[in-house]
Amino acid sequence: MVETKKVAVVGFGNIGTGVVEFLYQKGVAGLKLSRVVDKDLERERPVAIPASYLTADWRQVINDPEIDIVVELIGGIEPAKSILLAALQNGKDVVTANKMLLAQEGHCVFQLASTLNRRVGFRASFVGCHSLIHEFRQAGTTTKKFRRIYAILNGTCNYILSIMSREGKRFEEALREAQEKGYAESDPSEDIDGIDTANKIRILLSLISNSYHAVGPFPVEGIRDITLQDIQYAAELEYSVKLVGVIEQNEGVFDVSVHPALVPKVSLLGSLEGVYNGIELEDEYGVVSGLIAPGAGTYPTADAVIKDLLDIAEGRTLPMPNSAEDLALGSTEAVERRYYLRFSVADQAGVLAQICNLFWKYNISIAAVIQKEAVSNEFVPVVITTHLAKEGDLQAAIEEVDKLGVVKAKTKIIWILKANT
Amino acid sequence: MVETKKVAVVGFGNIGTGVVEFLYQKGVAGLKLSRVVDKDLERERPVAIPASYLTADWRQVINDPEIDIVVELIGGIEPAKSILLAALQNGKDVVTANKMLLAQEGHCVFQLASTLNRRVGFRASFVGCHSLIHEFRQAGTTTKKFRRIYAILNGTCNYILSIMSREGKRFEEALREAQEKGYAESDPSEDIDGIDTANKIRILLSLISNSYHAVGPFPVEGIRDITLQDIQYAAELEYSVKLVGVIEQNEGVFDVSVHPALVPKVSLLGSLEGVYNGIELEDEYGVVSGLIAPGAGTYPTADAVIKDLLDIAEGRTLPMPNSAEDLALGSTEAVERRYYLRFSVADQAGVLAQICNLFWKYNISIAAVIQKEAVSNEFVPVVITTHLAKEGDLQAAIEEVDKLGVVKAKTKIIWILKANT
Repeated sequence: MVETKKVAVVGFGNIGTGVVEFLYQKGVAGLKLSRVVDKDLERERPVAIPASYLTADWRQVINDPEIDIVVELIGGIEPAKSILLAALQNGKDVVTANKMLLAQEGHCVFQLASTLNRRVGFRASFVGCHSLIHEFRQAGTTTKKFRRIYAILNGTCNYILSIMSREGKRFEEALREAQEKGYAESDPSEDIDGIDTANKIRILLSLISNSYHAVGPFPVEGIRDITLQDIQYAAELEYSVKLVGVIEQNEGVFDVSVHPALVPKVSLLGSLEGVYNGIELEDEYGVVSGLIAPGAGTYPTADAVIKDLLDIAEGRTLPMPNSAEDLALGSTEAVERRYYLRFSVADQAGVLAQICNLFWKYNISIAAVIQKEAVSNEFVPVVITTHLAKEGDLQAAIEEVDKLGVVKAKTKIIWILKANT
Repeated sequence: MVETKKVAVVGFGNIGTGVVEFLYQKGVAGLKLSRVVDKDLERERPVAIPASYLTADWRQVINDPEIDIVVELIGGIEPAKSILLAALQNGKDVVTANKMLLAQEGHCVFQLASTLNRRVGFRASFVGCHSLIHEFRQAGTTTKKFRRIYAILNGTCNYILSIMSREGKRFEEALREAQEKGYAESDPSEDIDGIDTANKIRILLSLISNSYHAVGPFPVEGIRDITLQDIQYAAELEYSVKLVGVIEQNEGVFDVSVHPALVPKVSLLGSLEGVYNGIELEDEYGVVSGLIAPGAGTYPTADAVIKDLLDIAEGRTLPMPNSAEDLALGSTEAVERRYYLRFSVADQAGVLAQICNLFWKYNISIAAVIQKEAVSNEFVPVVITTHLAKEGDLQAAIEEVDKLGVVKAKTKIIWILKANT
């Protein structure tokens, strides 16, 4: 018989309420809710707990020797960081849904936990996609290495892109709709500029590499510049446009980035709609596994917290980066990729020939071309997709193209991701 | 420091060779290959092991007190069953890739293992999809119940259906191509009649229900009767045709079946191509998770065996049904589903009206109709998709339709599965 673990929940907002509902109202064998911390003790919550459970003082909970596990659900850097570190120092295991904290200060948390041999549960920081990495890592160190991860991790972006694609709305309209429905914040920049995806990619990187080393900056591009036109051209070519986090590994060097990409419409990532998250992982033998799961929401997040708590209560290993090994981030110039290119050109003779000649010069092979008859005397868009091309060659070619007199605006470049599934 | 476990591999075919390659050639910490059993000791294998490891006598291995774990990779019922039971009796843990054995005689194996408190690893019996169920079950008993599982589990069928859809080939042609490429056996009935999928669904049912109770027969339909015409009509309606295993749960009653179904093309299951397996699981709150992974192949199967071995060596729980609880299989008459119906009718006035009137009578609402101009004086196909309808109503309506004088052949009925993802 396993001893029942006493749990304190810090943060009694939506997720906190969900967790309290499971622990207190429904009851989970092996876990007992002991304290709930929130600075607002007055607000009515949909789940009633005894007044004696509540406190506004997190220090009281952290210093209570009776508490075995502290669940941090307040978000932001402080006081969340202090709470987690103090809880670990006091011999408690911790569970957190705080992706910003883990992305920016994860090394402090994981290093202390490793030193003290304590556990950090963070499934809730990227709900759902966790199990695939966990499963991979359990055998990964001995039987195989991962080659690449492609992941869609931000529900707000995916919702906006889905609306643009399905309803033919422009970015601003789709964003407004997402805000009205509560899928986007009034200041949406953390989501739509790719920062949230980058935070999750940092956590994924530490998990897959098993190192909590804090890596430097990497290229992050959001979805503000994705036009309805691009989405429609992509659809015509059987692609969806998605905001994708990419981790590629080549002999210990990690190539990490976040950017919009064209993904085959009929594929795990390309078919992902709305607020779902999805991840595809390819190992060194080219074998791909993929997983989709809800990326947010009170219930799925609370469920992820409960799973971590059960892993701790039942003595299972929690996947957690536990080395400080330096992670080398690499450059991408030699990598071969496929590209979607949208040129804005004058509607006159010889334009396509000039572009094609430059592609020929840089050994870039064309896969598809769309040029439609001009409907106005504005610039004409010409869309070209390439076969595999070296990033260096592509950049050089586009630089020359953009200097042509007939080219009227900077060429839009979007990666095309291969789909193995 | 964990003690190294001594492993015997029984069956030195393709998968066995893959496992031996990992254990002996590459080496896996915590595991040592001690013996390899095969009735053919002469055949040259791509991986060389010392002659002293080899024996043709499995009893010798099962009775060797030095061996900690026996890996059974010979397939079929006997002697595989005797090997597993004897190994368990002699205090060893076992790992098996034998889905036929587990589907038909799993209750014997799991019951003995439960009684003796030994572990049975069987990831390799449905490679890949295992982790999703495992993850769900760890929290499932306390926080939530599953509502339904839809799974594509047979690579041969999925390959044939993909080829029919992509290349416009008829079933017989696609089957011949699959046989030529080694994706289908010379006697393909176990795959294409749905028996292999049904075996895996039995294993999934025991895993998700945690009971090794041997359930009675359930409806199983293969893909022999899927015509190119159905696949093309489905594609026009934005669906793929897939062979799907279904487990639905309603208040402890399990509705289990295997049959072809229309799945939205742009969805996790609908976009699954070739030999991949995929599974979608919906919980009682309507939250869906999904996973795709290679369903077969030497390397993925060997990798699954290694994962099981590592779980055993490192003392992790292996998911395994460990109760004998009776599982009630239920009927589907009251369940509401959507249907694809293909009628073969005479090309004359009033036909559609007669069909529609019968639908009206049975309160079945029509979602889409395709009737094309007749190109010959053969029967004209009319395709109708329905909104949600009770199975009982649908059957009654079709029975009446099929008696109409203008209807020239039995109506083809295929389920349409909802896609939540």
